Amino acid sequence: MKLPLGYRYAATYAGIRKNKKDDLGLIVSDTPASAAAVFTQNRVQAAPVRIARFHLEQSRGLVSAVLINAGNANCATRTGDRVALACCDAVGKQLRVPVEQVFPASTGVIGVELETRLIVDALPKLVQRLASNRFEDVASAMLTTDTVMKTAREQVRLTKGVVRIAGLTKGSGMIQPNMATTLGFVMTDAAIPPATLASMLTEAVGRSYNRISVDGDTSTNDTMLLLANGASGIQPAEKERAKIQGALSKVMEDLARQIVRDGEGARKLVTIEVSGAAGDDAAERIARSIANSLLVKTAIAGSDPNWGRILSAAGNAGVAMDPSKVDIDLQEVAVCRGGLAADFSEPDLKKKLDAPECLIRVAFQGRGKGSARFWTCDLTEKYIEINASYRT
Amino acid sequence: MKLPLGYRYAATYAGIRKNKKDDLGLIVSDTPASAAAVFTQNRVQAAPVRIARFHLEQSRGLVSAVLINAGNANCATRTGDRVALACCDAVGKQLRVPVEQVFPASTGVIGVELETRLIVDALPKLVQRLASNRFEDVASAMLTTDTVMKTAREQVRLTKGVVRIAGLTKGSGMIQPNMATTLGFVMTDAAIPPATLASMLTEAVGRSYNRISVDGDTSTNDTMLLLANGASGIQPAEKERAKIQGALSKVMEDLARQIVRDGEGARKLVTIEVSGAAGDDAAERIARSIANSLLVKTAIAGSDPNWGRILSAAGNAGVAMDPSKVDIDLQEVAVCRGGLAADFSEPDLKKKLDAPECLIRVAFQGRGKGSARFWTCDLTEKYIEINASYRT
Repeated sequence: MKLPLGYRYAATYAGIRKNKKDDLGLIVSDTPASAAAVFTQNRVQAAPVRIARFHLEQSRGLVSAVLINAGNANCATRTGDRVALACCDAVGKQLRVPVEQVFPASTGVIGVELETRLIVDALPKLVQRLASNRFEDVASAMLTTDTVMKTAREQVRLTKGVVRIAGLTKGSGMIQPNMATTLGFVMTDAAIPPATLASMLTEAVGRSYNRISVDGDTSTNDTMLLLANGASGIQPAEKERAKIQGALSKVMEDLARQIVRDGEGARKLVTIEVSGAAGDDAAERIARSIANSLLVKTAIAGSDPNWGRILSAAGNAGVAMDPSKVDIDLQEVAVCRGGLAADFSEPDLKKKLDAPECLIRVAFQGRGKGSARFWTCDLTEKYIEINASYRT
Repeated sequence: MKLPLGYRYAATYAGIRKNKKDDLGLIVSDTPASAAAVFTQNRVQAAPVRIARFHLEQSRGLVSAVLINAGNANCATRTGDRVALACCDAVGKQLRVPVEQVFPASTGVIGVELETRLIVDALPKLVQRLASNRFEDVASAMLTTDTVMKTAREQVRLTKGVVRIAGLTKGSGMIQPNMATTLGFVMTDAAIPPATLASMLTEAVGRSYNRISVDGDTSTNDTMLLLANGASGIQPAEKERAKIQGALSKVMEDLARQIVRDGEGARKLVTIEVSGAAGDDAAERIARSIANSLLVKTAIAGSDPNWGRILSAAGNAGVAMDPSKVDIDLQEVAVCRGGLAADFSEPDLKKKLDAPECLIRVAFQGRGKGSARFWTCDLTEKYIEINASYRT
């Protein structure tokens, strides 16, 4: 599948992290792209989050370049804003685009000053390397404790032709044993105005990134950026919106699932489906409560069909519910009916739970129409090992 | 320190759990005691919780006997209510007290039917054993994954004489690798009417049991019962209320801390103190968010002075805050001032964090008066090991 037209990519090692692996990435749109972004809800926000927000406002939603560094979150730093601004300024000068069209993003250790010089010195090489096929170089440069690269692509056939969507993301739990940080960048060559783009992004995030949990911690740097540069020459018609929204959601769900699958220490991707709840919101809260229960996550790690923990976690969601109406299935096996034990073979189900993907289905009997899907991973000793180790 | 007057205790092995260790306990007040109780907030509630609530209503807050079993939570069971009622009925008959003055409590595995016969058959022996000095037998019989018994005592000198308070509790995380369950029973020989007792219990629970977390999961059976039988012959005067409230809170805080110290797999008791917040409620939410952060708990396990995780967890509490006003101390060492790194020796602090008790202090600069204390434990590989193991 082809990448979206009109974007170029580059990565290099700037010396921000200790191990010599690319740590600086650049995405350039040949013409200023419409942009929409969502950021972490954490009250502690990193400097690049503040500057990215400020630049989007100043540029009225236009982005020409995205500068991403790994190895340092530039959060809780004395010089944070100044460094982020100086780096954007340098990128703007190199590329001859207004500084407010440069979007910064950082991921890495918190509370350590980031050196402007490292990034500015690396810029000429980075710009020189820019090429339309170096997409995966950027995907790789932004990784931290991730064990695999995370990208996704889709294309959508509209009446006037084909438009393409491609995304790259990172995240595994914590980085440089320090911060859970997720960054995501999705590019399309469709022509979509910023206001429309913002609502499309909100919709897609609500069904993807906002539906995953590795450890229940929200980072200070989380950023998701959607760019639409119109390089395909195609502006989707109003009635084609659902089609392109579907493709966008698919790309973002794919990326989000890749993060959970690569969760720190995780061996299993767990999908939680809740149905029959009073509303979608109630369903989501129940799914989230199950996804964040250490009891559930450790039971899955041990392939233990312990439905009592799932029922109890559902009861802790802060949502009104009647336990006697709850049905639970694990790997398509009925384990609980009407809040009581169903008749199933524990050894057989235990074997099924050894699979790399587990499905927890919670259904409320009755006429409720609320449903939600949520993704999490199992919790293993390896997670503790990764995160209890002393920073080095 | 003497136990409260007018109570007798007994425990025996009824065959509810597999390993042959006492699993049935009985507390009897020689005269009907004023009682106040609080129960789990989980929407899934065990049969004994329902019946205990019902009996307290029926008896207008009087309790003569408390029947406690370990090894089976009697939750999500077909026969749950019937079993709990039948057992209370048998106790009432044996002791010649009204059935509604019998308070049931269970802790153990969820979703497995509890056999009435086991308990009824053990009752004669249990009643025969009743003695005022068998307090610790009951404390021991109600334990599950706990590694130590948990009791606390206080006495209060009032103008008219001395009244005594004693409490016993259990809880460690999950039990019979299945459910996080806490039970607590506190007896006093002061004469206190039920309505006063209820408000005293609420006050004390708010500063003790509701301020601890091992793994963020609330069980289906959590029960805290406070009994006042007046056997001391002393009714505290209105102006002595604060004194007895203080002693009660002290007993319950002591019990709650014992639970956290014995948290599954825990090696360290962590105290979190938040001050200078907008209000006590905001302070508590921030403390709770830090206490439940897996990042913070694993950092403590690894003796890693990773204050960035603490700052980020505070930012995730859903409370308005200005990160640039945050000071953080670990083991009395300043690690963060005004949201930025303080100058400290990491190797020295790491050594200090190897202690069995850790103190995290978060202070907001300014004029906020809100404060809170909260207790949690570190998260170790052992926790996963205990909870990922298959039920046997």
